[in-house]
Amino acid sequence: MTYCLAMRLKEGLVFLSDTRTNAGVDNVGTYRKQHVIAPGPSRVFVLESAGNLATTQEVLDRIQRDLATEGGHESLASVNYLFEAALYVGRVSRQVVTEHGDGLVGVDATATFILGGQIQDGEPDILLVYPEGNYIRASDELPFLQIGEAKYGKFLLEMAATLDVNPATATKSALGSMMSTARANLSVGPPYDLGVYVRGSFKVDEFRIDADSPVLVALQRTWERQLRASFAELPSFSREDLDRVSRSGEDS
Amino acid sequence: MTYCLAMRLKEGLVFLSDTRTNAGVDNVGTYRKQHVIAPGPSRVFVLESAGNLATTQEVLDRIQRDLATEGGHESLASVNYLFEAALYVGRVSRQVVTEHGDGLVGVDATATFILGGQIQDGEPDILLVYPEGNYIRASDELPFLQIGEAKYGKFLLEMAATLDVNPATATKSALGSMMSTARANLSVGPPYDLGVYVRGSFKVDEFRIDADSPVLVALQRTWERQLRASFAELPSFSREDLDRVSRSGEDS
Repeated sequence: MTYCLAMRLKEGLVFLSDTRTNAGVDNVGTYRKQHVIAPGPSRVFVLESAGNLATTQEVLDRIQRDLATEGGHESLASVNYLFEAALYVGRVSRQVVTEHGDGLVGVDATATFILGGQIQDGEPDILLVYPEGNYIRASDELPFLQIGEAKYGKFLLEMAATLDVNPATATKSALGSMMSTARANLSVGPPYDLGVYVRGSFKVDEFRIDADSPVLVALQRTWERQLRASFAELPSFSREDLDRVSRSGEDS
Repeated sequence: MTYCLAMRLKEGLVFLSDTRTNAGVDNVGTYRKQHVIAPGPSRVFVLESAGNLATTQEVLDRIQRDLATEGGHESLASVNYLFEAALYVGRVSRQVVTEHGDGLVGVDATATFILGGQIQDGEPDILLVYPEGNYIRASDELPFLQIGEAKYGKFLLEMAATLDVNPATATKSALGSMMSTARANLSVGPPYDLGVYVRGSFKVDEFRIDADSPVLVALQRTWERQLRASFAELPSFSREDLDRVSRSGEDS
């Protein structure tokens, strides 16, 4: 599986992706799932992918071919809005799955994407592209998106993700969500790819965070210690504080 | 959906269940999913259920009928080991699903259970009963079991659940796991049913914790504040601490 997330901040966008792939526990690999595409001076895209690895790779190859090929066809260089970019990615994704349909009976070949970035003077934004080809935006109330193994780390993002934090703080909570997921689910793991985009810069700073990265080790140690301390400091209560259920005899 | 968990401690067992059921978002109900059955002086069982509500209710009714009916048949009064009780529950569960099979085409009628308790001088234990009728125990390393929407609250249990904590502390982390789940997933919600069993007592203390319970409100407030504080206290790092990915031109 996979865990990728993206956060929308007032200052810009933060992307974090794991790199683990597996086709059964005896076929585990490391693949980049976060890709920066900058097809022009005033446009930049970050594409995070989850789902069938063959599909996501072919989608990326087709996106690059569309950029490299002359002609009036749609591409990430031609779209004028992020939602058009999302629809374009969704269409390519559906085409790939459809064309392999005959050979993929009983296999889920679909892929899901998070597409983020900025086009010219449009607002930076993040969109989730479904296998069906349509998309949703993140809300202002919960300004984050997740794909893949999203459940384990959702609570932390709900607590921490707001528009107002700066990219450094957002990165810490993104890594907290990622660590919670990787600890609970073996199919998600380091190294992690971090992308930080500051609005108007049209340039994504990319970092690779390895399992033995001092930053990651320090964050993980502190995070787990803090969590345990939080448990210890939760208010104690006695049984008298609770509503006891009175029973007479057996209960069903 | 549902979220039920159980923890095995040196001192005894802790059970926590939500009560929300839903058949679509326009058909939401509250049903007890934690049931204490004490069919004799030196045996007590706690059964937590997830899955098809009709199936779980018929399983409970059949368990009670087996207890109420004379005869040499197996029941929770006759089994000598907890694993026999688990196999018995699994067999009843499969029977119910099988007998309704004709009427349930395309519907998942299966149910999953956590069975805990103690029989005579056997060790108190918790077992997860699969829809297939077999079972697993919790390990000593991670002495907890979960059924239903298990992913959201797994990380917290992995951090907090050990054999050595007392039931009061275990209850706090169980509620923390439950609150994380309920916040992230609407299909899990209060009131919550708490069961605490002290080894050798053959009596389960049962509590119902409502959404407006002062204990729950205080725990939730403190827990969220502590978590946010934990984020704030995570070590800061500058971009220079990370391995920047150098890029030349476009990337795929």
